[in-house]
Amino acid sequence: MIQPRVQITLIQIDNYGPWTSTLGNDREHRLQVLQADLYSTLQTSFSMKNGLVFFNRFDEMLAVTNGISQAEHNEIQSNVQALFPFTVSMGIGVDITPFKAQVQASKMLQATGSAQSEDRRSVLAVKETLTLDEAYAQIIHIDVDGITHISDHSFAFETSIRLQHSHFDLMTLFGQLDSLLFYLGGDNFMAVTPNLSEENVSAKLSNYPPNGLPLKFGIGRAQTGRKAAELATMELEHVRHARAGCIISPNIRESR
Amino acid sequence: MIQPRVQITLIQIDNYGPWTSTLGNDREHRLQVLQADLYSTLQTSFSMKNGLVFFNRFDEMLAVTNGISQAEHNEIQSNVQALFPFTVSMGIGVDITPFKAQVQASKMLQATGSAQSEDRRSVLAVKETLTLDEAYAQIIHIDVDGITHISDHSFAFETSIRLQHSHFDLMTLFGQLDSLLFYLGGDNFMAVTPNLSEENVSAKLSNYPPNGLPLKFGIGRAQTGRKAAELATMELEHVRHARAGCIISPNIRESR
Amino acid sequence: MIQPRVQITLIQIDNYGPWTSTLGNDREHRLQVLQADLYSTLQTSFSMKNGLVFFNRFDEMLAVTNGISQAEHNEIQSNVQALFPFTVSMGIGVDITPFKAQVQASKMLQATGSAQSEDRRSVLAVKETLTLDEAYAQIIHIDVDGITHISDHSFAFETSIRLQHSHFDLMTLFGQLDSLLFYLGGDNFMAVTPNLSEENVSAKLSNYPPNGLPLKFGIGRAQTGRKAAELATMELEHVRHARAGCIISPNIRESR
Amino acid sequence: MIQPRVQITLIQIDNYGPWTSTLGNDREHRLQVLQADLYSTLQTSFSMKNGLVFFNRFDEMLAVTNGISQAEHNEIQSNVQALFPFTVSMGIGVDITPFKAQVQASKMLQATGSAQSEDRRSVLAVKETLTLDEAYAQIIHIDVDGITHISDHSFAFETSIRLQHSHFDLMTLFGQLDSLLFYLGGDNFMAVTPNLSEENVSAKLSNYPPNGLPLKFGIGRAQTGRKAAELATMELEHVRHARAGCIISPNIRESR
Repeated sequence: MIQPRVQITLIQIDNYGPWTSTLGNDREHRLQVLQADLYSTLQTSFSMKNGLVFFNRFDEMLAVTNGISQAEHNEIQSNVQALFPFTVSMGIGVDITPFKAQVQASKMLQATGSAQSEDRRSVLAVKETLTLDEAYAQIIHIDVDGITHISDHSFAFETSIRLQHSHFDLMTLFGQLDSLLFYLGGDNFMAVTPNLSEENVSAKLSNYPPNGLPLKFGIGRAQTGRKAAELATMELEHVRHARAGCIISPNIRESR
Repeated sequence: MIQPRVQITLIQIDNYGPWTSTLGNDREHRLQVLQADLYSTLQTSFSMKNGLVFFNRFDEMLAVTNGISQAEHNEIQSNVQALFPFTVSMGIGVDITPFKAQVQASKMLQATGSAQSEDRRSVLAVKETLTLDEAYAQIIHIDVDGITHISDHSFAFETSIRLQHSHFDLMTLFGQLDSLLFYLGGDNFMAVTPNLSEENVSAKLSNYPPNGLPLKFGIGRAQTGRKAAELATMELEHVRHARAGCIISPNIRESR
Repeated sequence: MIQPRVQITLIQIDNYGPWTSTLGNDREHRLQVLQADLYSTLQTSFSMKNGLVFFNRFDEMLAVTNGISQAEHNEIQSNVQALFPFTVSMGIGVDITPFKAQVQASKMLQATGSAQSEDRRSVLAVKETLTLDEAYAQIIHIDVDGITHISDHSFAFETSIRLQHSHFDLMTLFGQLDSLLFYLGGDNFMAVTPNLSEENVSAKLSNYPPNGLPLKFGIGRAQTGRKAAELATMELEHVRHARAGCIISPNIRESR
Repeated sequence: MIQPRVQITLIQIDNYGPWTSTLGNDREHRLQVLQADLYSTLQTSFSMKNGLVFFNRFDEMLAVTNGISQAEHNEIQSNVQALFPFTVSMGIGVDITPFKAQVQASKMLQATGSAQSEDRRSVLAVKETLTLDEAYAQIIHIDVDGITHISDHSFAFETSIRLQHSHFDLMTLFGQLDSLLFYLGGDNFMAVTPNLSEENVSAKLSNYPPNGLPLKFGIGRAQTGRKAAELATMELEHVRHARAGCIISPNIRESR
């Protein structure tokens, strides 16, 4: 039996550092607008095709792209080339674990040239892409328990430090589980994982360092990144309601 | 003699959590687009008035808003109300240190109601705003030394973990210096600080934990957040050129 | 033999007039931004699915949506609902001619309630949608011959009046040909037509009123709106090159 | 006594035609998104400074920019250069009538080179700009009487043809009155005029051709374009309420 795999796309702005220097020094506000607009455009494009993009570093994004073909990647690259003053290159990796898929994507893209090279423009480094039948994604939607109470009683920056503490710890933890972990804004995180069981995830997150913040989570499994995220969010909503005194529900949901 | 002060605005999406639930579970991609669009709009608006907004948590942003009046804040709130499916509330704090200014902004905004309340909409909590003559901002632009080499030879997620390590450590460090610290994307960070000397900053950053990444920085001082950021970027560019074998230059620049 | 048909979607902002009044009188700049952002979002969404949206009146748009299903229309409506402070309703019409298809779309949408009613929200009025196998679109890309010379030697508003003269005449002409005609900006227009021959179109456009501007055109035929537009643009480019002294080419191109 | 004058800025995308050809033939959807995004960015930027931009032809826009300095125009050009794959050039004209101001802006900009030249990039052609004390703008907000009834009972394209008929007639009429006339979308138009009296405007609009649509209007006078538009909208709202059976009100309002 063939194990289902996940397809991860690494997206890099080409020659970004050298280009930003051409804008002069009064540029940070413009770069911030540009990065946000690029992410908005890419998220709109990939999610229309049932993918999901994580902003990660903004100049370098990671996406779950199960079922999205090479030609569709090329089309999104052409959109960026038409709408923005720079191009983006992409590498596509496929593996049983998301972590190894991004290693593969990184290696293939690095083999085509440096991210800061003038010569690498709109490259798409790819060996294979997955059809939906071969594809699988598991996503865990995590949030902080009681964030409203914290946020309403702590100072803004204090809350931010505590969230970044959780962010860093979760990245480290999920990296060790052959997974990827991303911050979504607010008190929300998403992990893209191999087939981890609910018990396994619960055990890991209950060992969570005491100076971090208490967490809750929902797990979704589906063929596409967007569907897995939807199911994970559905389960997290169930947990939220259960915490608020409603019925208890399982933390995991699988798409048929 | 009156010491110059900094004006910090805390921006919060009103009733965001409960509102997101009304979108159903297939929502994360939409929320990501919405958060990026809101930040893009706010950055455009505040920077036109020489402020600078940091995305911080996206549902809660912090901005240096020296010289931006109460009426101008109200106008930006009206823009958001017209363009987005939600409103934003803001608190404005003024103090010698950016850290205490955000404490003040947080307290005043919290006093008007919870961020997750249906009743708090488009509130502007403010005691005073600064004219440019009274205002002062110091910004430190920090980046990672040799990030291109790291990024071209490590895997994407590995680099991200190392950058988040630096992010968390820098937040902790600058919090202790009565400062605020923000991630800008890529390998870039900005600290908003009181009047710290270059020697002081150098000493702190050279004690930087060994598992973090090596850093370099430029300091800018000016009446507005945007100008201070411009000068900090200018100095950081000088350091970059110096590292690349050109002339050595000071790390600090002050606007007349 | 079944004649291929075209699928036209009419998109209306719900309750737009009454809603704009809630923004106060200092609103026109905000409405202009909002309309442009909505169009940008809808064009991105439909074109990802090989449709093409024309801004038409901005509060009411028309799109060629061959092959785009009811569920896909619903998803785009959900995106708008999540990202904007209002909703959009849509009617889908299918006919051999684009003109009759929009009549059908208009009637079906009107039957669900007034565009200025508070009760009609996110309606999708649809009897059938076309699979690609059943679908056909003919698009004519028209521009003004020698617009650069006119634009470089006339005053801005004078050129605009002359273009609007052409716009109105072309709308009238193509309306009589069971077609739809849209302004694209600049000196560019697109007509969505039934199966008109090149000779027919040439004859009509050479009878063009003398106070209008001289025109040239390319025709594209394909299953989807976006592909037909691409082929029409390709042919228009050939004509441009021919006019510039290169080879003569046919004005029409058909996708397999 | 010095008569107050109006400042009109003509904005042109540089080398747009030749650049669009580099995008290949499958480009129209991308150009539509790009034009809408550019307009959204320019409207946001100029309106923050109390100007008002009309999309006009999209590749060539006209704006009322009373009180907006040369340096502020330059900054907006730098924003565009940073955010878009092309640059924009601008000409600023100042005169007692908006029509002559755009003639002056057109001539000055044309003198710097063709809009389709590779050499003209980010030019700002300007002799003088107005301080607010010297500036004056009169704006007439016009809409179609009973458009909802028409729109709810006619077919979409039929209504569009009738609106374009009104559009063309209004452009011709206001051009003869030393004015500029712009479509805003929906059933809304705005004229930028010299000091025309209410009686004069009423007389002209009641002579309106019978195959056009019945109109109503409000007039606003103020130092800036945005304020004049706000007052014109306020008066038009009064007329709307009067038509709906409420109190009759004057059609004109003047800012102190």
